[in-house]
This record gives sequence, structure tokens and C-alpha cells, in this order.
Amino acid sequence: VSEVANTVLRSNGGTDVVIGDASPFVIIGERINPTGRKKLAEELKQGNYETVEADALAQVAAGAGVLDLNAGIPGFDEVAMLSAMVKIVNDLVDVPICIDSSTPEALEAAVPLAGGKVLINSVTAEQHSMDRLLPLVAEHGAAVIGMANDEDGISMDPDVRFAAAAKVAANAEKHGIAREDVIIDPLAMPIGAAPDAGTAMIATMRRIRDELGVNLSCGASNISFGMPGRHEIDAAFLTLMIGAGMNTAITNPLHRPVKKAILAADLLLGHDEFGAEWIKDHRAELELAQGS
Amino acid sequence: VSEVANTVLRSNGGTDVVIGDASPFVIIGERINPTGRKKLAEELKQGNYETVEADALAQVAAGAGVLDLNAGIPGFDEVAMLSAMVKIVNDLVDVPICIDSSTPEALEAAVPLAGGKVLINSVTAEQHSMDRLLPLVAEHGAAVIGMANDEDGISMDPDVRFAAAAKVAANAEKHGIAREDVIIDPLAMPIGAAPDAGTAMIATMRRIRDELGVNLSCGASNISFGMPGRHEIDAAFLTLMIGAGMNTAITNPLHRPVKKAILAADLLLGHDEFGAEWIKDHRAELELAQGS
Repeated sequence: VSEVANTVLRSNGGTDVVIGDASPFVIIGERINPTGRKKLAEELKQGNYETVEADALAQVAAGAGVLDLNAGIPGFDEVAMLSAMVKIVNDLVDVPICIDSSTPEALEAAVPLAGGKVLINSVTAEQHSMDRLLPLVAEHGAAVIGMANDEDGISMDPDVRFAAAAKVAANAEKHGIAREDVIIDPLAMPIGAAPDAGTAMIATMRRIRDELGVNLSCGASNISFGMPGRHEIDAAFLTLMIGAGMNTAITNPLHRPVKKAILAADLLLGHDEFGAEWIKDHRAELELAQGS
Repeated sequence: VSEVANTVLRSNGGTDVVIGDASPFVIIGERINPTGRKKLAEELKQGNYETVEADALAQVAAGAGVLDLNAGIPGFDEVAMLSAMVKIVNDLVDVPICIDSSTPEALEAAVPLAGGKVLINSVTAEQHSMDRLLPLVAEHGAAVIGMANDEDGISMDPDVRFAAAAKVAANAEKHGIAREDVIIDPLAMPIGAAPDAGTAMIATMRRIRDELGVNLSCGASNISFGMPGRHEIDAAFLTLMIGAGMNTAITNPLHRPVKKAILAADLLLGHDEFGAEWIKDHRAELELAQGS
């Protein structure tokens, strides 16, 4: 596997997080997202950010290096909610944020409020998406996740996905965005519906790394949608992805099988010398189990 | 990753097990081995094979496709014990066996007793090992595991390990052994002592697959020796190895994290369509937990 350049994000407090081949895997905590979370959605509608705060603290404590912030509730004021999330989380924890929306207005409002160097999630290879969002990325010196789909939707053909990724990389370059500030999401689809979901990703990733030289991320839990034993599927999936050269993903560090798989992969790939992090996590788990 | 030829083993009862890129991962059950198992060692010394029988049945029930048989107890009659194991296990379960010894006399006695097509574990790249054991492999139409070390011991340099593997493959060819009947063990070393144990294996495996076109196996639990949380390390390790093109390994299917990682990897790599095996295993686990 060829080497890719490091992506460096920065927290509001000035702390850098490095995404790259020589660094431990970076977990982007997925929890702050009302999709499928009724209680959180209800709170957000009432301007209550207590769960957001609790989720931010819990995910960082569990090892999230970055926090994804998503405020998408159909029919409600995403601009206001996403902006509030950015300010609250920026003040609460010292990790970079990943500002996540499919609504350009929400990104345009929230990104300028963030300190440090944020990750914008996401642009697609659709021309209207790139034309509108890449200037925002460039203006704020942000990094961006580019989804490997375009106007024709999501293909199961790795070469079609690669072409979409290449379009995002080329357009980003035109807007003056450094190559290392583009992270491609090769699109994790539910394996229960698409038996080639994993192999298509691995093939896409190989071309993206070799030919575009960019980092890779994904929304990891999509892979197990509809299957029983989701956390264990996610864990094995992330391990395979890490082996194929993925250095960050949006996932849940509070899911123990996921966290352990990531720590074990770091250990096995030489990013946790003598297992210091692995042993620390193991001890904490034992202490928790013993109620001490 | 380039394609490699299938290795086909056969049980005493005539059932084939295929090790290859297009097939589910093959677990070689590691339990029938007195090393570090005091109770089993004591039984074997007294000619008692009850634990051997129980381990054979339990491992096959847990998904072992092949059973490793090892009777090495320093100072005791390995020839007699290994021979007895072969006969007992061959009669008891319908899976191929992997006859495991570092004593040539024991292999020479036990291999002719086995039905089907066995796997001989192992030959090294030491000339005396190859000269003595490869004729046995050829004579009995067996397959063989070749260890990637020679007279100079185990190197951490992938190119040195590859050279040892290539020596085994070349010598096997001289003895008329088909390329697909050679499986190379790239040598899993304890990650707690050698931070590059994982990366060295992956690099070695790439060259072995690309240049020798043979299947790969390993003794998976070596990787976690001396570390806490061994089963979870083994699970992530096997997932990474499977992603790097390993199609079989000697491991313990009764360790749930290991079994689940292997099933999840099969699912994610398209060897378990719609998750039939994954779902079956999940249901069995739920039923066991509910005591039904």
C-alpha cells in the first residue's frame, strides 16, 4: 500500500490531531446525530443540549479523537441547531470537530463559528455540491470529506466510485485546497443487502490511495445495517478497512467490540508500541467489571 | 492481491475441504496439543484419549474445518501417542487432519495411518528438514506447511522470510509436490515483544502470494503471547491476516471473539452470502445465553 499525506485537524483549543499512515487510527465519534435517536431529536427541538454535552464528554473519554456534529431533523431549524452544537462542543472538549450536514446553508452558518481546523462532512462529486461547498472549505482552511458518488448515485463498480473520488480531488485542487485536506469516503453499504459491499470498498480504496494519495474515511456502521450482532460486524469491518489503509472513520467508540478492534489493529500495525494503550484499556475494562 | 491456487484436503471419510481465495476461511483447530495443557499431557501419558475425543468433537461443532494433532511431550513416546491420535480422530469426526510434530519419526509413523489427504505440520527451510520430510509428503500425496525460517532462525526482515519460503517451495517442486499442496507459515511472533511482528507478516505474505502463488497459514495465538485480552488480539490479528490474503490458520474456534471475527470477515469478503452463517452463529449464541 502506497503512503498518503497526513491530514492535520485542529481543535478550538489549538490541539492537533493527525490522520495518517504513521499514526494511530482516529475515531470520529458518531453519536451527536439525531438520526434514529428520538430522545436527542426531542431535546434539540426544545433547545436542550444536555445529551449533546454528555455524548461529547463520553465519546472523548472513550477515545474519540474528533467529534462529528449533525443536527439534521427534517422540518426543524438545522442552521440554528448545528451552530449551537459547534459552539457548545468547541467550548466543552479539546478535540477537532467534523461538521456534518447535507444542507449547505447549515454548513455555511456553522463552519465560520468553529475554531481550529475543522473537517466538513461532506461534499459529493455532484457538480452543484462541489461548486457550492469547496469554496467554503477553501475560505476557512478546512478539510473535507468527499463522498465517492455523483449525479448517477452510488455505483457498486469500484472504478465508477474511483472516478467520483477523482472528480472531488480535482475540483478541490482547482479551489486551492491542499490534497491532504481531502479525505475520501468510499461508501460503506449494508453487507446484508450487497454481498460485495466490502470487496467493492477495498478495491475502491486501493485505487484512491495509489492514484489520488488521499486519506480515507467512512461511516462504518452502515455496513452492518439490518444484521444482528452489528457491533462485531463493525469491529471486523473496521479492522479490514484499517488493513486496507483507512486511517479514520465515523464510528462509536462506546461500542466495546469496535473500540477493541481499533486498539488491537493499532497494536498489530505498530502504532501502539509494547501495547501501552491496549493494556490501559484492558485494565480500565477490568476495573469497571469489578466495580472499583 | 493476486489469486492463489486452492489447497484441497480430504478427511478419512472422503470429505474435501478447500482452502482458497473463493472459499470461507478454514479454521484448523489447535486444541489437541499437550503444550501448556497439564491435564491433557497427564492423560496422554496414561494412554487416555478422552480429552482428545472431547476436543475433536467440540472444535468441529464450533466450526473447525481441519483438526491439528500434536502429541509432543518431552521424554514420552510421541510416535505411539501421535499414531493413536490419528486413528482415534480419523474414526471420530469427518474432517481432514493436520499432523503436527517437530519429530520426523513421529510424522513418519503417523502419516501412513491417516486416511484422506492430510496436512503435515511442518517442514522448515532447513535443508535437513526438507530432505527428510518432503519425500514423506510426496509419497503420501499430502499437503505440507512450510515455515518461513531456515538454519539462521527467524528473521524480522520480510525479504529473509520470503527467501526461506521460496526455498521450501522450490524444494517441494523438486520432490514432485504440487505448488497448491504447499502452504507457507510466515511466522506470527509475539507483538508484545516485537512491535513489527504484524507488519513484517503482512509484507512477507504479499511477496509470498505474489511471487510463489501459495496459500498461507499461521499459528495465530502466538501473536498475543504475554499480552492481556489475548482472544481479542487474536481476533483482530486474524481479521487483518484474512484481509492480507490468509485463507486458513491454526487457532481455537471455541474462543468466541476469534470465531466471530472469522465469520464477520467471511461475510464482509463475500464468502457468506446474505450472512447465513453469521446469523446462524448469532442465533446459537442467543439460545445458549438464554439457556434454551
